[in-house]
Order: sequence, then structure tokens, then C-alpha cells
Amino acid sequence: MRYELFYWPTIQGRGEFVRLALEEAGAAYVDVARRAGGEARMFRMIADKKAANPPFAPPFLKSGRMVIAQVANILLYLGDRHGLAPRDAAGRFWAHQLQLTVTDFVLEAHNTHHPISNALWYRDQKPEAKKYAASFLKYRAPKYLGYFERVLAQNPAGDRCMVGRRLTYPDLSMFQIVEGMRYAFPGPMAQLEKKLPRLVALHDRVRERPRIAAYLASKRRIPFNEDGIFRHYKELQPKR
Amino acid sequence: MRYELFYWPTIQGRGEFVRLALEEAGAAYVDVARRAGGEARMFRMIADKKAANPPFAPPFLKSGRMVIAQVANILLYLGDRHGLAPRDAAGRFWAHQLQLTVTDFVLEAHNTHHPISNALWYRDQKPEAKKYAASFLKYRAPKYLGYFERVLAQNPAGDRCMVGRRLTYPDLSMFQIVEGMRYAFPGPMAQLEKKLPRLVALHDRVRERPRIAAYLASKRRIPFNEDGIFRHYKELQPKR
Repeated sequence: MRYELFYWPTIQGRGEFVRLALEEAGAAYVDVARRAGGEARMFRMIADKKAANPPFAPPFLKSGRMVIAQVANILLYLGDRHGLAPRDAAGRFWAHQLQLTVTDFVLEAHNTHHPISNALWYRDQKPEAKKYAASFLKYRAPKYLGYFERVLAQNPAGDRCMVGRRLTYPDLSMFQIVEGMRYAFPGPMAQLEKKLPRLVALHDRVRERPRIAAYLASKRRIPFNEDGIFRHYKELQPKR
Repeated sequence: MRYELFYWPTIQGRGEFVRLALEEAGAAYVDVARRAGGEARMFRMIADKKAANPPFAPPFLKSGRMVIAQVANILLYLGDRHGLAPRDAAGRFWAHQLQLTVTDFVLEAHNTHHPISNALWYRDQKPEAKKYAASFLKYRAPKYLGYFERVLAQNPAGDRCMVGRRLTYPDLSMFQIVEGMRYAFPGPMAQLEKKLPRLVALHDRVRERPRIAAYLASKRRIPFNEDGIFRHYKELQPKR
């Protein structure tokens, strides 16, 4: 069986957290909306008036007859099926809790360019974006990233993984948020990384994993751009 | 064993979604921070440099030796233990997916008064809050609430519950977001409710459940106020 992933075809965005898990798992999947007619099918599934479980928004994953939405929920599902989640119940809740904190962080990163409304263009909320981004870089990014660093430091099984001593899906997400922050806010992130040695080391280890390295070198990995979650805008960088 | 819930002692906020589940379950619990010394204990647990699973923020639930944070994660845990979740795997993922969509909605409701930064007071982001609230009421609230209405309408087991034919934790959350919207935006919500008959009927049924009714009549239910998620500000109401 092949999974079908439904997500916007031109961005990493939230879907990337799912793509990384599928790639690390070596799972067979189709990135549906990147194929001809796929995006239209995605819209039809969202609008389907007969669906028992309609998704609110992409990404969603079709696995046999199941359709599962919300990144953290998809990872909860895939984690168990592909050995990317802890095996014990307490570890599973802890990994999921970390992933939900990633969800929160990702939304705040998104709001640096869309603080007022998704119904407006970025260019129509620039003054507010400048204020939001400044606060995000001063307070929120250090708080979240410092928290993830601390989770590594306090992991009783060692500081190489977020949960236990094996790679689990939150580790893949840590890789992605380091990548995203480096793209969106390179100067501030370079400063922040001085206090995030474990997180950076984890990022580097994930990047070198054979399947992840192959994925990153492939055309399946969409480059960062200014339509996604992590966007680089000159005017949102802090003044030196 | 009694659960210990850790959350801000003077607001409903995000903790209320957990309180409602504990109340409906008839579970024994202590709302720790509402007792003398409880809030200080909450802060110590968050800051604990030796904790294996430190929470990022309240609410969190202590169940024996486990400490679980993130509302949707806590409900995932409690749902299974107290018959408030579907029994089948597909239903469990679906209920959780709906709860994560509630999480998203709640954050957007929060951002109507804090669009720029949690580090600033509301009074310091009022112009932005007006813009955000207008867009929230025009686009986002109708989209989310219309989606939840549609989930009820499309439930193959009938439109009395969000998932299957039994009450599950997303039903309790639907009650709370209707309550919250009525408090925060009474005029717009009255308009919206004309198109949300199933959601309003579900709200009413939840309100009449014996344990929920007893809870709502008790001092354990903190009244809505302007420190919580759902706040009523005159200047954020749409002009007629």
C-alpha cells in the first residue's frame, strides 16, 4: 500500500514535517498535489459533503480508507507504524506533547509574516509583521528553542535524542525548525545557536541520516521560498 | 488516585477544556493552582532542571508519576481512561484531529486581543487587535464553526455527536467554544448561530448533562473575564 499525502505542491510548509517522517521511514508515498490533477483532488476531498471525516485543511494523509489530518496527528499515526515513536505509553504521550509544542512554534513563525490575517497578503500587513517578528525574535524563538535544548539536556537517556535513546519523529521536526529558522532569520538564528549546542548537533545528525540526506538532495525536497511558513524578508530582520 | 491539574487559577482559558473532561468523567482532581501555594508549585515544575518531561506551559496534568501537557494531549490521555474517546483506532484519530482543530481555533480567538505579542498588554496592541478581530469574525470564525457544523451533519452515526453516537471529548470542547464566542462576540455569534443549528443543539445537550450542569453551577467554574482566551471588549465588536 502506498500512502497518499495531500499538501500544497509548491512549499515545504507544514507538510514538510510529514514528508520527513515518510522519508525517514522509507515509506512508499505519493505527494498527490504535485502530480497532474492532484491539487484539484485535494480540494474535492476537503469539500466533500459526504465524507465522514472531512479535513479542515491540508496536510492530510490517506492510508487505505483512513484520512488523517493535522500534522501532529499524522505523526502520531505514522510514528507507531514505522518505529518512529517511543514504544511505551508514557514516551508516546511525551513525544506527542513535544510535537504539539512544535505546532505552536510553527504557527508563531508563520505569524511573523501574517500576524493579522491569512485573508490578506503579506504586503498588506507589513507594519504589523515587523512588530510581530521583533517580538518573536526577542521573546518567543529563544523561549521555544531554549526549551527544546533543555529537553535534550534533561533527557535521562542522553542528549542525542528528544525522547529516549532512539530517533523519534520529534527529532525530525527539530531538524526542520532549525533549517527553517536559518532560512527565515539567519542573523538572529546564528546568535541563538550559540546557546543551542545540543539542538544544532541533533539537526546535524538528522541531516546525515542516509534516507534524509538522499531526500534533501532530491527534487522531492522543495526549496524554501516566500510562500511557505518560514520566509525570508529583509525588512523583518532586526536592525544591527 | 487524584489527578492534579495545573493551570492559571483565575481564568477558564485553555485549562477549561481539561476541566470539562474531568468533570464529565466524574474524576477526582485537584485544581492545584487555586489552592494556597499551588501556583508556586506550578512554576517550580515548569522550571525544574531535573524533570525528564518538563512542560512548556500550563495546562498540565499530573497522573501518578506522569506529567502530561498540551490540552489535546491531555484529552487524548483522559479520553481513553474515562470512556470519553471512541473505542476504535480510526475514531480515536478522528476525535483527536477535531480537538487539534479546536486548538487552532482557540489560538485565533486568543489572537483577537493579542495579535502582536503575549509580551505586550492588550492596550498596547489595540489597533492591530481591531484589524485581527474584524478578519477573525468575517472569515475565520465562520469557517471553523461552519466546519464543526458540517462535521455533525456528515457524521454517519447521526448529528447529535461529533464522533460516533456517544459523547466524546470534542463534544465538550464544542460546548466551550460556543460559550466562549457568545461571551466574547455576542452580536456576531448570534448571527453565526443561525447557520449552526446542530452545533447549538449539541451545546445545549452538553450543558444539561448532570455532571456538567452541576459543575457550571458550582464555584469550580470560573466566570469568563478579560484575562482569559475569550474576552469581551466593546471596541472589538463590529460596528453596526
